[in-house]
Amino acid sequence: MSYELYYWPTIQGRGEFIRLALEEADAKYIDVARRAESSGMGVRAMLRLMDNSEYPPFAPPFLKAGDLVIAQTAHILQFLGPLLDLAGDDETSRIWAHQLQLTISDFVTEVHDSHHPISGNLYYKDQKPEAQKRAADFIQARLPKFLGYFERIMKSNPHGDQFMVGARLSYVDLAIFQIIEGLRYAFPRAMKKSESNYPHLLDLHHRVSVRPRIARYLKSARRVPFSKQGIFRHYKELDVDRS
Amino acid sequence: MSYELYYWPTIQGRGEFIRLALEEADAKYIDVARRAESSGMGVRAMLRLMDNSEYPPFAPPFLKAGDLVIAQTAHILQFLGPLLDLAGDDETSRIWAHQLQLTISDFVTEVHDSHHPISGNLYYKDQKPEAQKRAADFIQARLPKFLGYFERIMKSNPHGDQFMVGARLSYVDLAIFQIIEGLRYAFPRAMKKSESNYPHLLDLHHRVSVRPRIARYLKSARRVPFSKQGIFRHYKELDVDRS
Repeated sequence: MSYELYYWPTIQGRGEFIRLALEEADAKYIDVARRAESSGMGVRAMLRLMDNSEYPPFAPPFLKAGDLVIAQTAHILQFLGPLLDLAGDDETSRIWAHQLQLTISDFVTEVHDSHHPISGNLYYKDQKPEAQKRAADFIQARLPKFLGYFERIMKSNPHGDQFMVGARLSYVDLAIFQIIEGLRYAFPRAMKKSESNYPHLLDLHHRVSVRPRIARYLKSARRVPFSKQGIFRHYKELDVDRS
Repeated sequence: MSYELYYWPTIQGRGEFIRLALEEADAKYIDVARRAESSGMGVRAMLRLMDNSEYPPFAPPFLKAGDLVIAQTAHILQFLGPLLDLAGDDETSRIWAHQLQLTISDFVTEVHDSHHPISGNLYYKDQKPEAQKRAADFIQARLPKFLGYFERIMKSNPHGDQFMVGARLSYVDLAIFQIIEGLRYAFPRAMKKSESNYPHLLDLHHRVSVRPRIARYLKSARRVPFSKQGIFRHYKELDVDRS
């Protein structure tokens, strides 16, 4: 099956978790909003489908697979996981993978809110003092809480400490790669100081980064660069450890 | 099967979405953390299971069903839905129900952050100016965006406009009941001004509230009252419409 991914074309954002899974599986997909408007695609096609689907998404990303339109990042991965062979071997593994991915989604929301604590409708510069407070709490309390949890999960994986779920790669491992990659971009100082607390996650990040399809993807133009528009943003004044 | 629900005992919070589904289905369940410590239950039993489960939850609520321990509100409902006959009739309905519930979860996070925009580790009084800004944006932009979306979904339900998913009650309808109930408690002024924009949701809220098992539950001691501890909190200074 060929998939259609719909997401904002200029950022990695939440869509990146889907892109990484599709790339690792070498699945056929069209990143619709990144294609030219002149070809009938682009952002306009995305907004049109949002308005006219029988099951309208609240927000991108969403995926079209045949007649099905499915939204919510973790939900899309739950759907794609078995189809792409990235979701573990049995029902218990799939339930566990979805649960971890939902926790990653919660973390991603907190990463976003570290620079936008007041409103997504305001620019960063209009909520900078509040962002400094929230980012300080993020670095001091939330980042270690989430990364410490994921580290503990991987370390105590009864099937070995090489993957987050079971004994082989799942979409959760790809998501952990993206989390580490994004945090290093956004908070280089805080990560330099603390990332050695999470050796299993760092090792996983490295092993994912050198997988042939992922390495090829990361070097390609299909990988949108990090920037000051996405979820993970680097503002020097937020990357401060007040502890 | 008898279920064990684990959630903070003194608030409705995210656990309430699970309680409502269990109550509507007349399912056997133990609200473990609300039972006495002397009986081996209570909060200590909850924290113990969080630490010692093979699949440790990041946070409450979580559900124990036989050997399975499952966390994340929307995920628990996805699991319980078919077992409680509250998830639609087919796979497409179940996918759709989960997608809507995940969007409700996102909304619940925003409701929470309207009074805690900086940190869950600080008291409300220590982030009051920031909360006033975020609550103003919430009332002006986010509340109408989410409720407008849910209203549109129900109004355009191809199976009739009586339920959120398909032609009969699902856990999503119970969640919409709780959302309206909570918003009326937390933001009575804003809701009085705007709730007539969402006639389908109000009608659904009423119809859920008079269902015999729900009505019985709401009058019982099992329903934790709203308070200044939960997700939905009433602070007069946040219930202001600056538009």
